[in-house]
Amino acid sequence: MSKQQAFTEEVQLQGHIIDSLLLPRAFELIMDRGGEFEILTIHVGKRKDETSLAKMQVSAPSAELLREILDELQALGAELMRAEDVETEPAPRDGALPPDFYSTTNLPTEVRLGGEWVAVDGTEMDLAVVVDQPAGRACTRPMARVRKGEAVAVRHSGIRVLPLERARGGEIFSFMNSAVSSEKPKKLVIREVAREMHAIHQRGGKILLVAGPAILHSGAGPHLASLVRDGFVDVLFGGNALAVHDVEAALYGTSLGVNLGNGLPVEGGHRHHMRAINVIRTAGSLKEAVEQGILTEGVMFEAITRGITMVLGGSVRDDGPLPDVLTDVIEAQERMREALQGVELALMISTMLHSIATGNLLPASVRTVAVDINPAVVTKLADRGSWQTVGLVTDAELFLRELVLSLENTDAE
Amino acid sequence: MSKQQAFTEEVQLQGHIIDSLLLPRAFELIMDRGGEFEILTIHVGKRKDETSLAKMQVSAPSAELLREILDELQALGAELMRAEDVETEPAPRDGALPPDFYSTTNLPTEVRLGGEWVAVDGTEMDLAVVVDQPAGRACTRPMARVRKGEAVAVRHSGIRVLPLERARGGEIFSFMNSAVSSEKPKKLVIREVAREMHAIHQRGGKILLVAGPAILHSGAGPHLASLVRDGFVDVLFGGNALAVHDVEAALYGTSLGVNLGNGLPVEGGHRHHMRAINVIRTAGSLKEAVEQGILTEGVMFEAITRGITMVLGGSVRDDGPLPDVLTDVIEAQERMREALQGVELALMISTMLHSIATGNLLPASVRTVAVDINPAVVTKLADRGSWQTVGLVTDAELFLRELVLSLENTDAE
Amino acid sequence: MSKQQAFTEEVQLQGHIIDSLLLPRAFELIMDRGGEFEILTIHVGKRKDETSLAKMQVSAPSAELLREILDELQALGAELMRAEDVETEPAPRDGALPPDFYSTTNLPTEVRLGGEWVAVDGTEMDLAVVVDQPAGRACTRPMARVRKGEAVAVRHSGIRVLPLERARGGEIFSFMNSAVSSEKPKKLVIREVAREMHAIHQRGGKILLVAGPAILHSGAGPHLASLVRDGFVDVLFGGNALAVHDVEAALYGTSLGVNLGNGLPVEGGHRHHMRAINVIRTAGSLKEAVEQGILTEGVMFEAITRGITMVLGGSVRDDGPLPDVLTDVIEAQERMREALQGVELALMISTMLHSIATGNLLPASVRTVAVDINPAVVTKLADRGSWQTVGLVTDAELFLRELVLSLENTDAE
Amino acid sequence: MSKQQAFTEEVQLQGHIIDSLLLPRAFELIMDRGGEFEILTIHVGKRKDETSLAKMQVSAPSAELLREILDELQALGAELMRAEDVETEPAPRDGALPPDFYSTTNLPTEVRLGGEWVAVDGTEMDLAVVVDQPAGRACTRPMARVRKGEAVAVRHSGIRVLPLERARGGEIFSFMNSAVSSEKPKKLVIREVAREMHAIHQRGGKILLVAGPAILHSGAGPHLASLVRDGFVDVLFGGNALAVHDVEAALYGTSLGVNLGNGLPVEGGHRHHMRAINVIRTAGSLKEAVEQGILTEGVMFEAITRGITMVLGGSVRDDGPLPDVLTDVIEAQERMREALQGVELALMISTMLHSIATGNLLPASVRTVAVDINPAVVTKLADRGSWQTVGLVTDAELFLRELVLSLENTDAE
Repeated sequence: MSKQQAFTEEVQLQGHIIDSLLLPRAFELIMDRGGEFEILTIHVGKRKDETSLAKMQVSAPSAELLREILDELQALGAELMRAEDVETEPAPRDGALPPDFYSTTNLPTEVRLGGEWVAVDGTEMDLAVVVDQPAGRACTRPMARVRKGEAVAVRHSGIRVLPLERARGGEIFSFMNSAVSSEKPKKLVIREVAREMHAIHQRGGKILLVAGPAILHSGAGPHLASLVRDGFVDVLFGGNALAVHDVEAALYGTSLGVNLGNGLPVEGGHRHHMRAINVIRTAGSLKEAVEQGILTEGVMFEAITRGITMVLGGSVRDDGPLPDVLTDVIEAQERMREALQGVELALMISTMLHSIATGNLLPASVRTVAVDINPAVVTKLADRGSWQTVGLVTDAELFLRELVLSLENTDAE
Repeated sequence: MSKQQAFTEEVQLQGHIIDSLLLPRAFELIMDRGGEFEILTIHVGKRKDETSLAKMQVSAPSAELLREILDELQALGAELMRAEDVETEPAPRDGALPPDFYSTTNLPTEVRLGGEWVAVDGTEMDLAVVVDQPAGRACTRPMARVRKGEAVAVRHSGIRVLPLERARGGEIFSFMNSAVSSEKPKKLVIREVAREMHAIHQRGGKILLVAGPAILHSGAGPHLASLVRDGFVDVLFGGNALAVHDVEAALYGTSLGVNLGNGLPVEGGHRHHMRAINVIRTAGSLKEAVEQGILTEGVMFEAITRGITMVLGGSVRDDGPLPDVLTDVIEAQERMREALQGVELALMISTMLHSIATGNLLPASVRTVAVDINPAVVTKLADRGSWQTVGLVTDAELFLRELVLSLENTDAE
Repeated sequence: MSKQQAFTEEVQLQGHIIDSLLLPRAFELIMDRGGEFEILTIHVGKRKDETSLAKMQVSAPSAELLREILDELQALGAELMRAEDVETEPAPRDGALPPDFYSTTNLPTEVRLGGEWVAVDGTEMDLAVVVDQPAGRACTRPMARVRKGEAVAVRHSGIRVLPLERARGGEIFSFMNSAVSSEKPKKLVIREVAREMHAIHQRGGKILLVAGPAILHSGAGPHLASLVRDGFVDVLFGGNALAVHDVEAALYGTSLGVNLGNGLPVEGGHRHHMRAINVIRTAGSLKEAVEQGILTEGVMFEAITRGITMVLGGSVRDDGPLPDVLTDVIEAQERMREALQGVELALMISTMLHSIATGNLLPASVRTVAVDINPAVVTKLADRGSWQTVGLVTDAELFLRELVLSLENTDAE
Repeated sequence: MSKQQAFTEEVQLQGHIIDSLLLPRAFELIMDRGGEFEILTIHVGKRKDETSLAKMQVSAPSAELLREILDELQALGAELMRAEDVETEPAPRDGALPPDFYSTTNLPTEVRLGGEWVAVDGTEMDLAVVVDQPAGRACTRPMARVRKGEAVAVRHSGIRVLPLERARGGEIFSFMNSAVSSEKPKKLVIREVAREMHAIHQRGGKILLVAGPAILHSGAGPHLASLVRDGFVDVLFGGNALAVHDVEAALYGTSLGVNLGNGLPVEGGHRHHMRAINVIRTAGSLKEAVEQGILTEGVMFEAITRGITMVLGGSVRDDGPLPDVLTDVIEAQERMREALQGVELALMISTMLHSIATGNLLPASVRTVAVDINPAVVTKLADRGSWQTVGLVTDAELFLRELVLSLENTDAE
């Protein structure tokens, strides 16, 4: 097979590459992809505070495969040893990219311009990098928003990413990563999440909540509302159903036909659903309903009263929808992207659609807690290739109750 | 408790109400809701071809509850014995309804105008009924499209629905209803579905396919494409991901990084995904990509080549998206609503979002087959209160393979 | 088709058959099975306190089918109108029954002996009824324990069951039956369960807990232990793993390698598992380990200290096992059967194997709460054809925490 | 923190330790467990056919933790550099081990006796190693079968395991390991499994099938029977329900009340279940039922007719059970252990209980295919720490149909 590995490139990794497992991951990756490597030099730091350096020659049987391996190695922080500037090609038309465009990861990225490494503005995966050569600047850009003729980074020369440092010492966001399980002690994890939220809140950081309507069905609306009221939510993402169920609970005390006060099914629940939408449409919007004194409690009420940033993204299954819902999904994405600036922790509860949408927009460095009773959802959300995601297979209602209790206790500490 | 049941109304049911279980269901419903009933007269047809008649007085402890019980009884086909015309009130503003609006079921509905029962045009649940008194007509209308001042049916007088007749004799769409199971013989069910599809196809009826992207991941794209090519799909609903995965498979032979030919993970799969989007955006649209000879196989190719009706609805998690995707979800709903006219069978495979969206728009009379490997999804889709839904917890790839084989065999019969 | 319905039998139902939905269920059943019915007389009680009476002729195209329909009707409380004594045939050999044996339901049953209806001793499904004609007595008996020559009830004459009365007025054990859902408010259900447990405990009734090992993994062992310590568990069923994980937690503070104190994975967890088994085997038994002061806390410690009835049934996947585990499954069943006498409420948490085993042994009248995070398990457990089962799809850890809190609050009321 | 790492030990790894990822795994493990390492020497083979050698000093803050890290490193193939013989202590009583007993992995193990490395007889995890010093031999032994006074290996000196070589080049049993998914192309995986089965069958190797009763419910019994008849199953493991459902299908054409011929629910199915058990109990056993011409088709018939090894293990939820079921679970384990000798491939379909039981007994080197529609089950089964397990989330019925077709095609090649 060796004879076929005709395409080669030299790369180097340096830093805490053994300690942080980057070198082992590089080995594994090359072999998994069907490539080979030959180690040219390896200097292993013998003590914890010494960095290591490895240079190796990577080879693959085709140029395409080699390129893909190099792409992946770059995502781990490897640098090509032939130092060249980033290459660009002009976008062929509005909203389209040159065929060989570089597609970003969710890690901080740098491009080499005139021999200097320059940070690319904006960290989000699957975007293009638009380079402003004269200004010596570069930024990420969604494909749909690239204009014809803009200089788009292509191939992989002159591009590098800055891998996340791995958390040490049993940090919860480290060890939970692979432990998406319904059989682990959740009380402890929830306590950690509460501490993290408290710390971020104390230092004025931003917390994002992505919430699904099942939270309201399960009677956990008051917990959610109290999180918002107590200032633990700075940005709220959801859909039409979240808002409608919340309004229904506030107006009629029900959620899709279940009386939230005594747990008994009330007839006409579905009717309440449509009526709740109608009340808000008649008022004009959620904000107007609050101002008119129609909506006086619940998650939407608290969010509007506190003036937090809220994005309600539409979906094809929406009833109504409420006037506050962004029915254009690309506009909703854009608003979510803006709202994410500065977010340090994302709590995603009981919604696959909005959580995946959010995950697509988040830098890898944002800590993420994904909660769902369905293991498949949690697996999908938690599998983002970073040590920053905690997946919890649990009951959203009981999770939120415990979280609110933990936050109160953390407060008291 | 009896003293509290102060609010009463007399209703009657007639027809094959014992045979079709409508009477028992009415009893059950009243009791479940906390109401009571007294049977005034009951005439039971003793032979199969005799119809029965039951009159009863329904009572409830509150006017609201009585009204809700009557709403539900109406959905079973009960008629109020005091015959009155439908009541209407004007819509208070564009896109909003009078507070007491009647919300439709997914059954054929009639309103009483000038003493005559008139069919309401359009069968879809959760809509308003707009009445044109002078013209003696009425039609369903989404809340968002009602204009200020239009006469909207309110409360429940003068409204009745026509319940579905229950299929007899072990018909598959009857017995499978409550049998959403992964432990039943699927081969037989699939054979029945194939026969139904074949019969509809032969008589020029329309078949709708609602398809999720997992079908493509699992390598079942060719089966889907062959269904379209052989004319068994007249309308296709899906999202951006369905189309993108299909294009990726057509252009690169992969789906999110898995080579569909040998099952091995190919590196750069995620890149292929973005590249596929870019190729279509560069071409202008899926149709243009077909015309330019770029897209030469797959589900999209077949659908465009055959000119079937296709609606790709956007979602907030879309990458790109493809130019063919309707990014405004309300516009997408409207297009889906139009495309559903005349559909006799809906096949919903591996997509909760688009299947629920479609289910919201479908009359109860359209036979529906919901397929997913996740039992929770199937339960949700199959639970539409009619005998017309078959839920199958199974593997979409293997289901489609078997369906294509069954259709071939049915052809040969 | 009517001509084929050559086999007929007359049956009657009486009592609150409309009110309790027995008549509708009878109609539904006959039709679902492919039989037909002709109503001979129907007298409907017009007020709530009047009973109703219906006589009908049931027909089916084969004797076998008719017999099966009659079996099912009997399970609803229908009586054959030709009054005959129960028929018996001798068992052909030890542990085997005559071919036409009557197989019990989980409802109280009576047989007609010398013209008198006699209660059958023991209520458990799928058993034989052994009749002692001279003594005028009958009892249920597992097939394996019937001796050659004993008189076993056969066919369906002279046998009737006493259906459960349906609970009214929104009682939790009534309305939850069909509502196996992860989207309903659990807090309320848990409160109801706590009240029921408290009431049973107060009146000296017996509560059964069937517990799976996942409870221990999830750190909820202390909640379980406190339930036992506070006297809310009179009978405990589980397997080897439950006891081993509990012992591991008590001895080492871990469960399968996870430190239950700080949530971090501890190395050697699997080793702890085997070591825990070895410690108990070395001590001789769980009881001896308690007496020797080796085991000083946990569920097993509390159960042994309080002297409650405990059955640990073996399974082929057991490690060790502990000396206290009954490795013969039929012996385990027998011990479970004895221990169930007098149990009024069964709490089944996070174990499909032991819960199904228990469900097989329980009379329908025992209220059952089935808790699991996997909806498929809850559906299977809750589907026992009675109104006495509440299924909860939720997190066992958080459920138990909430239950303990609710019991404390109930106490304080 | 470094000062606390007071306990140290030197270890070495050699061979294809980079190529096979053993070195990276060792790094990861030490760090995950809270230990540290210092690399003393590292020689990296630069070409594929050169082996590498790494020596390092491993340290940990406690003797216990160090010991656990070393245990884990040993499981990867690391050797302690101070070469000592295995230590033993006598078993304290029948069925119990010395407290520090060495607990086996599922990898081939060697102990050092008189300076020589000697293979330990029998490969199975969680067993003790009993050493016969005079004879220079050692063997694995279940805890329960160790007799008082036997010399049991303790701690970790003088013990090493031989890690599995990692398969290369896109081998299906390599890449599928982490790819337990319902969204991957199954057709290709099934083809590979068929090829593997065919190859093993051709060379006279042994194939084990572990089968759950759901296979029969789903109408896939004939596929299973054909696998047995065509010689692709040498050993069959299952439980009472598997055999009972198979007998029910053979005698009555039903499975728990579903007619397997037309898919319609037949009444009296549950009765058929008990009757089927009774028929076999009356005949004496499955074998006698075959000999008496009562049982003439199905999986049990084929298995008995071909004389393959079959172990039916009992469980507490068994009805009956059939006389052929081993009601003592420890005896069942012992029989399974014997039957596993020489098995090269294990197919586990739709049974968690028996699959986990089997997995506990299997050496890591036996290739395993785990099939279930429930992802949680597949995850649990596939997570056995080797590259030898393929997990498939799919429909067992359609899987078996496809497998039988693939085997026929493989035959024809």
